Amino acid sequence: MAIRVNGARLNQSVADLAKIGATPDGGVTRLALSDEDAVARARLRGWMEDEGLAVSIDDLGNMIGFRPGRSDGPPVLLASHCDTVVKGGRYDGALGVLGGLEVIRTLNDHRLETELPLALVNWTNEEGVRFEPAMQASGVLAGRFDRDDVYARTDRAGIRFIDELRRIGFEGEIGARPLPASASLELHIEQGPVLEAAGCPVGVVGGIVGITWIEVVLDGQADHAGPSPMHLRRDALAAAAKVISGVEQLALNCDETAVATVGRLQIEPNIINTIPGRAVFSVDFRHRDPVVLERQVKAFAGLVEAVSEATGVSATVRRFWTSEPTPFDPVVVGAIEEALVGLDLPVHRLWSGAGHDSKYLAEICPAGMIFVRSQNGLSHCEQEFSTPSDIEAGANVLLGAALRLTAQAPARA
Amino acid sequence: MAIRVNGARLNQSVADLAKIGATPDGGVTRLALSDEDAVARARLRGWMEDEGLAVSIDDLGNMIGFRPGRSDGPPVLLASHCDTVVKGGRYDGALGVLGGLEVIRTLNDHRLETELPLALVNWTNEEGVRFEPAMQASGVLAGRFDRDDVYARTDRAGIRFIDELRRIGFEGEIGARPLPASASLELHIEQGPVLEAAGCPVGVVGGIVGITWIEVVLDGQADHAGPSPMHLRRDALAAAAKVISGVEQLALNCDETAVATVGRLQIEPNIINTIPGRAVFSVDFRHRDPVVLERQVKAFAGLVEAVSEATGVSATVRRFWTSEPTPFDPVVVGAIEEALVGLDLPVHRLWSGAGHDSKYLAEICPAGMIFVRSQNGLSHCEQEFSTPSDIEAGANVLLGAALRLTAQAPARA
Repeated sequence: MAIRVNGARLNQSVADLAKIGATPDGGVTRLALSDEDAVARARLRGWMEDEGLAVSIDDLGNMIGFRPGRSDGPPVLLASHCDTVVKGGRYDGALGVLGGLEVIRTLNDHRLETELPLALVNWTNEEGVRFEPAMQASGVLAGRFDRDDVYARTDRAGIRFIDELRRIGFEGEIGARPLPASASLELHIEQGPVLEAAGCPVGVVGGIVGITWIEVVLDGQADHAGPSPMHLRRDALAAAAKVISGVEQLALNCDETAVATVGRLQIEPNIINTIPGRAVFSVDFRHRDPVVLERQVKAFAGLVEAVSEATGVSATVRRFWTSEPTPFDPVVVGAIEEALVGLDLPVHRLWSGAGHDSKYLAEICPAGMIFVRSQNGLSHCEQEFSTPSDIEAGANVLLGAALRLTAQAPARA
Repeated sequence: MAIRVNGARLNQSVADLAKIGATPDGGVTRLALSDEDAVARARLRGWMEDEGLAVSIDDLGNMIGFRPGRSDGPPVLLASHCDTVVKGGRYDGALGVLGGLEVIRTLNDHRLETELPLALVNWTNEEGVRFEPAMQASGVLAGRFDRDDVYARTDRAGIRFIDELRRIGFEGEIGARPLPASASLELHIEQGPVLEAAGCPVGVVGGIVGITWIEVVLDGQADHAGPSPMHLRRDALAAAAKVISGVEQLALNCDETAVATVGRLQIEPNIINTIPGRAVFSVDFRHRDPVVLERQVKAFAGLVEAVSEATGVSATVRRFWTSEPTPFDPVVVGAIEEALVGLDLPVHRLWSGAGHDSKYLAEICPAGMIFVRSQNGLSHCEQEFSTPSDIEAGANVLLGAALRLTAQAPARA
């Protein structure tokens, strides 16, 4: 059954969706439940309906396009997200939804019926940029988050998730949630340099690293920048600089796979001739080994304490979100590897350094991911790029894995 | 002639003015040419008129309240400013204007005529927070800045200085500028811990340290916080942290009087799970010795170059403003010291670590400053505080120095 996706059609759909929320420098800003997200959702709904999918919306705004199988068993999900970060790229999320759409278009082209049904899914608010934390919709399905808590989350303007969901007309029914599912497949760009370095267009993902998010508040003393002698200052930014350098060092001293990032920082009063009195910043630690991840968090607490003692700046550390390391289901990973072999593509297994909805899906059903090579490893930025042929190859792997997984229901993990 | 100011009246005026732009935590936000500044100016104009001063406004919005002398020689200026930083204190600037007002009220109480006239002056935009740089109005008078360039300066909202000056109704005549002047006296809070440590309520200022302001732009590469290995990152904030720590070290390694501050910092895109691609921050170096100040700036350039080379983050350094160290006029300093002695106060001489309009005044006429002890050395913050009795003492020194300087025109410096 050597059917193949239509690469030109898929790449055209990626380009079309990227126009919604397009930035001047070639990226996309399409925050969850924004006006741009609403336009993208309408476009996707149209595409789903064009393929004869039965479209439903669940209570979290997740969009499900159902394609029946010969049997009425639980569907195999082809699922990702259409929201982006601020000044993000054209592929992150969109590729998984549109790759799934292309798989369905290809099956329709060939009038192919599968044993198990398929469901194309667009998860709400994967990025967690507008409403923190990330992966809220899949997290509710996995029982990780409380739905009403998600509803009550506010963005920086104080606007609630539920109000925006209603405003854009995507509050659906709890019964529409795409559960149970036989399996979940997510096609995604790698967002890192590993496949490029290995010379592989497509990779199979072994699992998702653990992530933990921490907020640090340093309180010193705002004062005039001139007449305060250095040794009497309690400069919150000078203290923050020591912590930030220490965070980088913690990752460098750990092992090659460890990463740590301070991505957000705000100081007060943020005036050229005033010593900063307060610094608030985020820390993001990641590792595939839960023991190592906890060791990093402990070392970080010690670092902050040491800086606080040395500088007289008081510190509050709040660890507000953690996603444990998650290995993927061996049956799904096996189906992806078989698809790669069937396409004469090299089988390169790697771990995901980023979180994805598939992390929570893995707690509900057998789940797996396929990565497409990213040019220069860049993502979450306007320069994000994967070649049309790599995208086509990734979608063909998704097709191959979907055909294998819909041929019969895999055993529950 | 043992006349004294009315301390209760002065402290009441300070409290009254502090209500305009008052913050919930006891400070003041009264940015130059804001609505709050306009209200404060109207209040001051009323107080000036109550004392029979002839009020005029010059082309920079400086307010001048003229009190004739027996002779028609150039006046002695009692001058400071009523604008504040964001969440600033109640005394910085206001004390000099209201202290001058109290001197005039006291002279009026005693129907005392001086040989030389007096002029109470409220300088426009001393802080330079809303429209950079600082001390613009006095700087134009000293020929340091071009008036039309000052007019064209914009705040962060893009609003021009001249448009705000007109909006609040304070664009006056160039002929009203308070020049020539026989001398200038400025009463001000110390904004540092020196007088408190020395146990002196009032100090005489030997001069103003040199200040230089630098803007640094670090350009790295924004990228997803997860899948980018540490050694391949070009993290603009991680690089900025190294520079910020280096700036602190430059001051600590210099001498006890050297200070250096990073007061303003912004990163992009400022998102928890994205490596910062850009960091923009300010650096403020101060020293009383111009040679040392230049040495610090050179060392800073080397620091930035070293960090840039080590991190692969590119750097742009722009030194955009410098105020040279300025010793004050010996005759004015002498008059202040005589006033201290006449009041049985200890004579403690110190330098100002902060810039003041008196820096530019010193280039136009003999100038000097009187400092009042600041509790905990704090200023440019809501906790800024000087005791009522210290304030009264400072105003009595201002009165004593003003009487000495108006008795005859001092020699030009």
